[in-house]
Amino acid sequence: MLEKKIITQLRNVVGKDAVLTSREDLNAYSYDGTTTWTHAPDVVVLPTTAEQVSQILKLADESKIPVTPRGAGTNVSGGSIPIKGGIVLCTTRMNKILDINKTNLTATVEPGVVLQDFNIALAKQGLFYPPDPQSFLGCTIGGTVAENAGGPYCVKYGVTKQYVLGLEVVLANGYIMNLGGVTVKNRTGYELIMLFTGSEGTLGLITKITLRLIPMPPANKTMMAVFDDMAVGGQAVSNIMASGVVPAKIEFVDNFVLRRIEEMTPMGLPVDAKALLLLQADGSPAAVEAESKQIVDILKKSGAKEIKVAKDASEAAMYWKMRSAGFAATFGAAHTVMAEDVAVPRDKLVEFIRKLDEISERTGFFICYLGHAGDGNLHPSIFTDIRNKEEFARAQKAMEEIFEAALSLGGVLSGEHGIGLEKQRFLKKAMDPVALNLMRKIKTILDPNHILNPGKIWEEERV
Amino acid sequence: MLEKKIITQLRNVVGKDAVLTSREDLNAYSYDGTTTWTHAPDVVVLPTTAEQVSQILKLADESKIPVTPRGAGTNVSGGSIPIKGGIVLCTTRMNKILDINKTNLTATVEPGVVLQDFNIALAKQGLFYPPDPQSFLGCTIGGTVAENAGGPYCVKYGVTKQYVLGLEVVLANGYIMNLGGVTVKNRTGYELIMLFTGSEGTLGLITKITLRLIPMPPANKTMMAVFDDMAVGGQAVSNIMASGVVPAKIEFVDNFVLRRIEEMTPMGLPVDAKALLLLQADGSPAAVEAESKQIVDILKKSGAKEIKVAKDASEAAMYWKMRSAGFAATFGAAHTVMAEDVAVPRDKLVEFIRKLDEISERTGFFICYLGHAGDGNLHPSIFTDIRNKEEFARAQKAMEEIFEAALSLGGVLSGEHGIGLEKQRFLKKAMDPVALNLMRKIKTILDPNHILNPGKIWEEERV
Repeated sequence: MLEKKIITQLRNVVGKDAVLTSREDLNAYSYDGTTTWTHAPDVVVLPTTAEQVSQILKLADESKIPVTPRGAGTNVSGGSIPIKGGIVLCTTRMNKILDINKTNLTATVEPGVVLQDFNIALAKQGLFYPPDPQSFLGCTIGGTVAENAGGPYCVKYGVTKQYVLGLEVVLANGYIMNLGGVTVKNRTGYELIMLFTGSEGTLGLITKITLRLIPMPPANKTMMAVFDDMAVGGQAVSNIMASGVVPAKIEFVDNFVLRRIEEMTPMGLPVDAKALLLLQADGSPAAVEAESKQIVDILKKSGAKEIKVAKDASEAAMYWKMRSAGFAATFGAAHTVMAEDVAVPRDKLVEFIRKLDEISERTGFFICYLGHAGDGNLHPSIFTDIRNKEEFARAQKAMEEIFEAALSLGGVLSGEHGIGLEKQRFLKKAMDPVALNLMRKIKTILDPNHILNPGKIWEEERV
Repeated sequence: MLEKKIITQLRNVVGKDAVLTSREDLNAYSYDGTTTWTHAPDVVVLPTTAEQVSQILKLADESKIPVTPRGAGTNVSGGSIPIKGGIVLCTTRMNKILDINKTNLTATVEPGVVLQDFNIALAKQGLFYPPDPQSFLGCTIGGTVAENAGGPYCVKYGVTKQYVLGLEVVLANGYIMNLGGVTVKNRTGYELIMLFTGSEGTLGLITKITLRLIPMPPANKTMMAVFDDMAVGGQAVSNIMASGVVPAKIEFVDNFVLRRIEEMTPMGLPVDAKALLLLQADGSPAAVEAESKQIVDILKKSGAKEIKVAKDASEAAMYWKMRSAGFAATFGAAHTVMAEDVAVPRDKLVEFIRKLDEISERTGFFICYLGHAGDGNLHPSIFTDIRNKEEFARAQKAMEEIFEAALSLGGVLSGEHGIGLEKQRFLKKAMDPVALNLMRKIKTILDPNHILNPGKIWEEERV
């Protein structure tokens, strides 16, 4: 528990309304989108300026109080759970879009801007910011930068780090540091911006972000393809990637997810399909016409049982809504859904799918999955019940086998969700020990008292 | 001078043929593409494996001998000049393309592979690696990663860092560290790969590189537009960027560069033009047709005096050869050509051009320039004579004014050439002091004896 004095000091910094201490409030900030952990903070602070963030961190650093940065709490690796208690520093009131510049193709935002609000503001000016984690309706841009978020569009357009040009970051000691700027090219010293991007709130508090934008592609077309066999669907993805056409999105949904979505929101989906691919071509109208024909052709040759091309924007929107509902659909399906995130080389997708099937059969756990097939990035989920200790331990063991299968194929522990609390145990298997040590040293330079998001990424610090 | 013992030890590591000590050889490695500095090393070593690099670095670290990494020496900020003597570690014999994977859209190469050799190998498989510094005919891929190189294609496709997925790096103590891998998404810990990318050889020796590729765009079209006024040409660039179409390249050449090129290689260029824009649209044939029409339309409306659309690949190649010759053309024009590299926000291009004109008029120095207008990245050159101390000092002062003009418009010291020796004096003006200090601390973690490319980036260490 924090001393009363600290609460008073925090109130002096941000005002009484911006310091939450009631049990209900603390509970509301005790979890994120991850199923396995919860932990309540001692206090939640909602600053509105970088200066306030600076004062909060100074205070916390002096008294060695843990500070867990939080946006909308949609994190799915435990990154925003205050596992060591202390302060949750929530950025949702820092939600101003400061600038959108159509000629420079950049925007500057505060960290608490909700991604979808940003997307809507950009669309009005014919602009586009591609990274699209499927929490886009609620997640904050600060969170997406701290996690270096991905999403369906990343197969063509790259992940968040490819769009960050400038950051204002408050360091653990309260110093407000400026990095980068508003130019698309910048070769001034080391890529420090990239160090903070994807650092999961462990190196500093992001208080301002300048992003590169691109013009909104004038046209797009959505296609859906149904397969009798998941591996055939996976091979179709490989065939598309090797063909020379780069779809804007190539998403993969399995039979279970498909059925669940159709149960929840009937939209006439082909519920017998073993696998469904959802694809989008975008660009100029002429390019979209040509590329979507090419994609449909490859899908046919690759053994798709049925192919639908969305006839208009509303049919396309229905398909993408289906994809967005994917996670929610799996989450309702069992008491505990261990939803994971791994990536394999794109040419190993079929082999990985076969390994998942094999693990499922051998362990007896049902494994469903969906994901960004064009990037080799899948989200396998294991259904279990955390209240049944023996079963849950077996489920964790099965998930471990999934990670090992991904690593053995040249894949990685996380494609887009980060390490957080979820994958600390596996980090040593997935990283060069000297690189891991380098991360620790950089952490200690920037946050010598380890107050920033303690207990994350590193195994030893876990409670 | 190095002890004889060291030379013997180096010969034991790499073989006699791979250790150069003659005066002629040392002179050949005493300079790079930068005009202002030269300094001979004590020895040049040409390893062929990471293990050899590791042994060389161990040896150097134990005896605190400076090691300057070098690819082809095409650097234009002094990065590969061994300003403190010691060892030049040249990677040109590590020149194997280890893997090109068309389905995974990745390639793995040794650092000494010449960029153009790589491009040719990729083209045979219909693949494309966009970053294209204009030294591509000679520069090594290791050098482009160490410098985070740019080039004309970057306006649409991004710079080198956006393509690096995996690195093998030998640290100062000889440890061979592996970072990243072959997946396009990877959220395993901090972005350490980005720390080495663009670190100008000061943090480690890159010995293996995995790069993301894209399919070769099936079609492209080149356009040339001539303007009576440089600022009008600059405004045309802004108009294109704000229009929603993203050309693959938008290059800018001024009247002086144009005349010089035509003198050197007559190709019927419009030598009276005050400014020339060279543009390329790429993508599917239909998209290229549509986008090039749109670009031509904007160029007309923006006041282009004359527009030519290359009728075939050979006419297009002639125009691009002209652009590639740009630097060479300026270099022959005076005893000392201070060719620089700055970037401004794209919507500040016209204002920056006006400032350059004003500086030229006031200081009396002729300033010519060319560059990547679509990125706001220009290369202004001042003609002077380093032998005339008084004049050279004034020229340096004028260049300083150019840097200040760029910074005052929200621009940056370097768009793509890096800091090297050239811009150390200005780094403090262009970076947050705490960020600069953070860079130093990271450097000291990785290279406690400061043997790796000493004298670069940091002012204090400059001889």
